[in-house]
Amino acid sequence: MKAARFYGPNDIRIENIDEPELRAGAVAIDVAWCGICGTDLHEYLEGPIFIPAAGHPHPLSHEEAPVTLGHEFSGTVTALGEGVDDLNVGDNVVVEPYFVCNECAPCLAGNYHLCEKMGFIGLAGGGGGLSEKVVVDRRWVHPIGDIPLDEAALIEPLSVGHHAFVRSGAKAGDTALIGGAGPIGLLLAAVLKAEGLTVIMSELSEARKAKALSSGVADHVLDPSQENVADRVRELTDGVGADVAFECSSVNAVLDMLFDAIKPTGVIVNVSIWGKPATLDMQKLVLKEIDLRGTIAYVRDHAPAIKLVQEGKVNLAPFITARIALDDLITEGFDTLINHNETAVKIIVHS
Amino acid sequence: MKAARFYGPNDIRIENIDEPELRAGAVAIDVAWCGICGTDLHEYLEGPIFIPAAGHPHPLSHEEAPVTLGHEFSGTVTALGEGVDDLNVGDNVVVEPYFVCNECAPCLAGNYHLCEKMGFIGLAGGGGGLSEKVVVDRRWVHPIGDIPLDEAALIEPLSVGHHAFVRSGAKAGDTALIGGAGPIGLLLAAVLKAEGLTVIMSELSEARKAKALSSGVADHVLDPSQENVADRVRELTDGVGADVAFECSSVNAVLDMLFDAIKPTGVIVNVSIWGKPATLDMQKLVLKEIDLRGTIAYVRDHAPAIKLVQEGKVNLAPFITARIALDDLITEGFDTLINHNETAVKIIVHS
Repeated sequence: MKAARFYGPNDIRIENIDEPELRAGAVAIDVAWCGICGTDLHEYLEGPIFIPAAGHPHPLSHEEAPVTLGHEFSGTVTALGEGVDDLNVGDNVVVEPYFVCNECAPCLAGNYHLCEKMGFIGLAGGGGGLSEKVVVDRRWVHPIGDIPLDEAALIEPLSVGHHAFVRSGAKAGDTALIGGAGPIGLLLAAVLKAEGLTVIMSELSEARKAKALSSGVADHVLDPSQENVADRVRELTDGVGADVAFECSSVNAVLDMLFDAIKPTGVIVNVSIWGKPATLDMQKLVLKEIDLRGTIAYVRDHAPAIKLVQEGKVNLAPFITARIALDDLITEGFDTLINHNETAVKIIVHS
Repeated sequence: MKAARFYGPNDIRIENIDEPELRAGAVAIDVAWCGICGTDLHEYLEGPIFIPAAGHPHPLSHEEAPVTLGHEFSGTVTALGEGVDDLNVGDNVVVEPYFVCNECAPCLAGNYHLCEKMGFIGLAGGGGGLSEKVVVDRRWVHPIGDIPLDEAALIEPLSVGHHAFVRSGAKAGDTALIGGAGPIGLLLAAVLKAEGLTVIMSELSEARKAKALSSGVADHVLDPSQENVADRVRELTDGVGADVAFECSSVNAVLDMLFDAIKPTGVIVNVSIWGKPATLDMQKLVLKEIDLRGTIAYVRDHAPAIKLVQEGKVNLAPFITARIALDDLITEGFDTLINHNETAVKIIVHS
């Protein structure tokens, strides 16, 4: 079968490899669509990062580069391994793409997303969604009912947004401020809107501002080059400030702005991945009694994220900005995201 | 009466001033003992900081420098203003030393310690504990029963520690790591120990390490110049890491160490006041899903702090390292704290 395999920086090859073999407790899936993630881009440009380098196999997958890419994917069940009796051939599904050890303190505490040896299917081994077929342990397979398979490829990043929402402790009626309207910022906004919050987004890019408004996920979109965002947030909240804020840009000026715009006792969730340390005004953290919380990936978030889509509370269609074939992954996928990343939200790939 | 009054940096004068007049709703108190706080030291060396400078009266006290100092004090009720019927002359009390507006969003939300106009009695005006007498609104007066008046002067910083404990969400059985065994670190440790936690402290100073052990508030005292504190904390917690951690040093290397020593999903409370921005490893915040929380002063913490002392769960006596007269405030108080601040924990002043 065809698969996109990572060999090294700027070296991803579309190759023919053996189909994966079904095993007990696992599910065989024909991949329908797979999204390209920012993580994939970083691996392409500067990897291996999360991918185990040649000679350094991952402790759980025991695989090393080259590995098949793709961890945001949907598909259809084609066969069930021994002992799997609660799914049916023909079911449409998505995958929560984890390797976890089940033995470390975080795993034993139920925080499997913080597993000390954690790896992602599609980065650490185990095949991936940028191929025709994949075999995944039953635990990580989530049925999606009648959600269209193309939109379902976005359930994985939607679950990232859902987890950030859970981490924030926000509730219906709260006002949220999101710094950055990239793919994760937009999908987080979709979750917050579905959960009954008022959503304010801060963004510089014209294309992203337009998408935040046209998709209906933002109530207000503010441009920090045009106005003082913190002042405007206070205006929009009767002088109080935002109840919760989300850093989705990894830009220090945005983090500083969130500290200004949040109300006293407010919660700021850092969703973005930072390549360098941040500079933090501890006086604001102290004198406003702010909570700054980290969030990573998802844990028990796929089921509620799927439910939001099934109930029509989240519409994923506006965030699919291109559909391409696996053969065009580099030219129409990675290169587009690298060179035109403001207009592209999610490019999904059909193998 | 005698009072220590702040005129400017290095200019605190012991003067004779008029006694304060009793007013409706207020309580007249003969001051017994008043502690010297790090904040007082900062005002002495670099002020005015929290003190309203001459020509800039505080919006709630309407006072400006010179003001009477002292916000950590105990005393005995000598008279009750009109309408005060739930205290008796002769009661021993401590004061929660606030001016608040009762009108801003934080006040209306019950977070009076985050009042937008908040000031401290003993800094912003209203007299202070470094004088013979003070008149305070009933709301801020807390009876202490039979707690000795000298120890009661430490209820205010103990309440700071209690509030940091509340902010952490820690519970009995948890393991706490405190970075820094200065006065606030030690009193916080006393609260944590009383609440049933295991307490590990990290400290460089020999005198402070000795006090942490001899006072009985620390189960383990680690010296970062002698060993890797984070590694030792993991050893002491079966490889898990501390459940909660408290930054009480305003030293960036200590904050970094707490990020290493805390367990995934752990809470770090910043208790110290930073004079400069901190550098923060956002990757650890994200990948361990750490909560970094600010805490300031106290809100509804005096009553539970008093209860811990009354029940014998906190012994404040070991933290009184000197008793001095008001006339010796500069020579035996401020100068000692500035020049020998490792051996002195709390110097209390009798007026």
